[in-house]
Amino acid sequence: MKDNVLQQDPIAAIATPLGIGALAIVRMSGQGVLAIAEKVFRKAGSNEDCALSDSPGYRAHFGRLYDGDRLVDEVVLLLFRSPASFTAEDMVEITCHGGPVVVKAVLKLLLDNGCRLAEPGEFTRRAFLNGRIDLTQAEAIGEMIHARSESAYRTAANQMKGALAHKLDALRSRLIESRALLELELDFGEEDVEFQSRDELRARVDELRREVSELVDSYQHGRLMSEGVATVIIGRPNAGKSTLLNALLEEERAIVSHMPGTTRDYIEECFIYHNTMFRLTDTAGLRDAVEEIEHEGIRRSYEKIAEADLILYLMDISEDDFMEEVATIKDIRDEYAGTELLVVANKSDGAPDADQRMQKVGEESGCRVLGISALRQEGLDKLKDEMARLTEGLDKLHEASVLVTSMRHYEALRNAEDALHNARELINTEADTELIAFELRSALDYVGEITGRVINEEVLNTIFDRFCIGK
Amino acid sequence: MKDNVLQQDPIAAIATPLGIGALAIVRMSGQGVLAIAEKVFRKAGSNEDCALSDSPGYRAHFGRLYDGDRLVDEVVLLLFRSPASFTAEDMVEITCHGGPVVVKAVLKLLLDNGCRLAEPGEFTRRAFLNGRIDLTQAEAIGEMIHARSESAYRTAANQMKGALAHKLDALRSRLIESRALLELELDFGEEDVEFQSRDELRARVDELRREVSELVDSYQHGRLMSEGVATVIIGRPNAGKSTLLNALLEEERAIVSHMPGTTRDYIEECFIYHNTMFRLTDTAGLRDAVEEIEHEGIRRSYEKIAEADLILYLMDISEDDFMEEVATIKDIRDEYAGTELLVVANKSDGAPDADQRMQKVGEESGCRVLGISALRQEGLDKLKDEMARLTEGLDKLHEASVLVTSMRHYEALRNAEDALHNARELINTEADTELIAFELRSALDYVGEITGRVINEEVLNTIFDRFCIGK
Repeated sequence: MKDNVLQQDPIAAIATPLGIGALAIVRMSGQGVLAIAEKVFRKAGSNEDCALSDSPGYRAHFGRLYDGDRLVDEVVLLLFRSPASFTAEDMVEITCHGGPVVVKAVLKLLLDNGCRLAEPGEFTRRAFLNGRIDLTQAEAIGEMIHARSESAYRTAANQMKGALAHKLDALRSRLIESRALLELELDFGEEDVEFQSRDELRARVDELRREVSELVDSYQHGRLMSEGVATVIIGRPNAGKSTLLNALLEEERAIVSHMPGTTRDYIEECFIYHNTMFRLTDTAGLRDAVEEIEHEGIRRSYEKIAEADLILYLMDISEDDFMEEVATIKDIRDEYAGTELLVVANKSDGAPDADQRMQKVGEESGCRVLGISALRQEGLDKLKDEMARLTEGLDKLHEASVLVTSMRHYEALRNAEDALHNARELINTEADTELIAFELRSALDYVGEITGRVINEEVLNTIFDRFCIGK
Repeated sequence: MKDNVLQQDPIAAIATPLGIGALAIVRMSGQGVLAIAEKVFRKAGSNEDCALSDSPGYRAHFGRLYDGDRLVDEVVLLLFRSPASFTAEDMVEITCHGGPVVVKAVLKLLLDNGCRLAEPGEFTRRAFLNGRIDLTQAEAIGEMIHARSESAYRTAANQMKGALAHKLDALRSRLIESRALLELELDFGEEDVEFQSRDELRARVDELRREVSELVDSYQHGRLMSEGVATVIIGRPNAGKSTLLNALLEEERAIVSHMPGTTRDYIEECFIYHNTMFRLTDTAGLRDAVEEIEHEGIRRSYEKIAEADLILYLMDISEDDFMEEVATIKDIRDEYAGTELLVVANKSDGAPDADQRMQKVGEESGCRVLGISALRQEGLDKLKDEMARLTEGLDKLHEASVLVTSMRHYEALRNAEDALHNARELINTEADTELIAFELRSALDYVGEITGRVINEEVLNTIFDRFCIGK
């Protein structure tokens, strides 16, 4: 933590999710929050004899909040005194009853009595600015909160502990060392000395680049772990997309009917299989859209395909014209060549020669074809296994290794990788020391940006604006 | 509070709403919860030097939860010691990060270490059993949490303070007094004494009955305040029901299209106007349903009409066959005679003679007709004013008066009212003292059931089972 804590203006926000629950927390941070609490709180009892303003930190007080004479709620008020708090400022956490209307009334009371509504991420931003946490830890908190699978949550918890930050700090120290030696050479510029041989430098840069590349490569896995596998189900109307979606989710989420075009918009639902999350999108049917809504839906379904990690092309294998779909399948295969594509032949119990049909589709399209009956829930386990193949080995990874899960880190590391690559080339071509030093400095800045050692106001804004208010 | 607190087996539950938020609370109550906390918590700092098990109540501790060696989360742990807690038992509240996966991991950790998952309402049930709160207060907490409007929340806050309980206790004392005098007469049975004249008794019973009736009558208002005005929008497909719903909600909630039958299921959305909540239900179009889903939707729309406080019949006044709807309107008027019905003439800008048309519909149907254009958002304020007329005077009521908002209280009071009515009749017909005493005793029991002075296990179960887990 930094030596001198900056206490900014008092802010307040609802910290727990809005909804129906027994309890909720509204919190305040900054200069004067204890005085604000005293204005609206009438103590009813606690183990403390002292007044709120004399209370030490880490103490709770039971009582009622009043807006003038009107009872707002019965609450427990928890005090933290600077610097021993999340933001390192004075803080008050109010635990009130959990209904949306109550919680908003409590927040309004604080805003009416001198607090400003916190901006998204402002509590965490203050924690960062006061040196309580680094940027990767701040982001890890965000990822932990948004985690929708066990693996995403564990990866984030690992990062919250500082695993990534330590790794990056170690990289940074070594970069600083190499650069410092080069800068020393520059200081002695005209004497043409080398404080490290170029071979030595090349070996160091290679080693650094290898480690940065490993982190860059871990992003492919890290992203799947933290965001899940984006899976789209596409196919003609009536192929059974909603039925498949529901069968996979084992719950009725979409309206299933025999009428083409029931799914007007896309629906995203998640399910976890073998510790991996799949984010399933059911899209509007692929066909000539004559109706307004369908049209909008179809435009979105193409967007969703472009963002997918996995495409499930669902077809009705019992239809007589089943071979007509092969052309579409091939189009999709070529158009989205980088994305895994699996052809799922639905209603495989509806045609006696289904196996031959599937084989034919497979041969013609060059894709893997899997037979199921979504309605009878047959073949679904095989399908899930096939889907899970994509993420094989992932759950072994995350306990031990440091994974990059954030696009921001990924991009910074890619930039650092490029800079190290450039440095390597410059060493090979025996370029000026100054040029090599410049590349090392950029690599250093890129790595420093990740943890926030190099502060870039724009980066800070991007990070904290994405947080919810109250965080 | 009762003198001897019963400490039951340790229970745990998530107390805040599930969802995305900065923080969440998982709480424990019962025998041995401090020891359970000690097993999973490693302290990182706080203003306390003492170990968790030596910590006084109302103290917070900062640290990490571990499942073996695996970090579960960084948390603040708040201790309460019996009897100074919500349940009057030992309690631990853990404030962790707010994501659903994190919160569930924290709960699981507690369950793995000796807690049992709390049943719905079990925390509040323990608070009631240990005499911390009466039943009306317990229910008020529930209503406060579920409040969807300012007025519902204020009524509940009033009840939480004990306003209803005090009123009922006062009624009860007077009932006890009258009954005691009667029982005394029974003890002196053969001597034929009267400790209060029958005129005196009649006056007392009349007064009590008047007060009970006032409470019974307040339920009509109380229910509208706490649950909101159930409003259904019905009418032919394409009359513009979804557009009207959206215009009232001022947000796009339903898919609006020109195709009849887009709304497959009913949608319930709320909006607040002049402090009153309206729960709007948009139902599937009223017409011959040929498609499966529509059919289901139409069945539900009739159910919804039966439950409504207000029916908005929406028609397209610009259609040439507009007079054909009058028969339907009259049917609905007769079928749901007790419910307010308002005919809303949409697209009133679509026909030059709209005013005459509306007048004709009004004359033929005998209903009030209001012209609007849902698409152009014209006439909506007038419509809302007309809707709000239903609840006129409500917001003046709740600050001062005690309102009955719960069906349970209403029914008990109705029973008490009946018993008092019977007592009155018996006094008039100079019936046996024993019979009169019996009726007064039932009235007393019914009133006592409301606050829980008369404990009825079945009533307790009904109340607490409706609570969410964690409350």
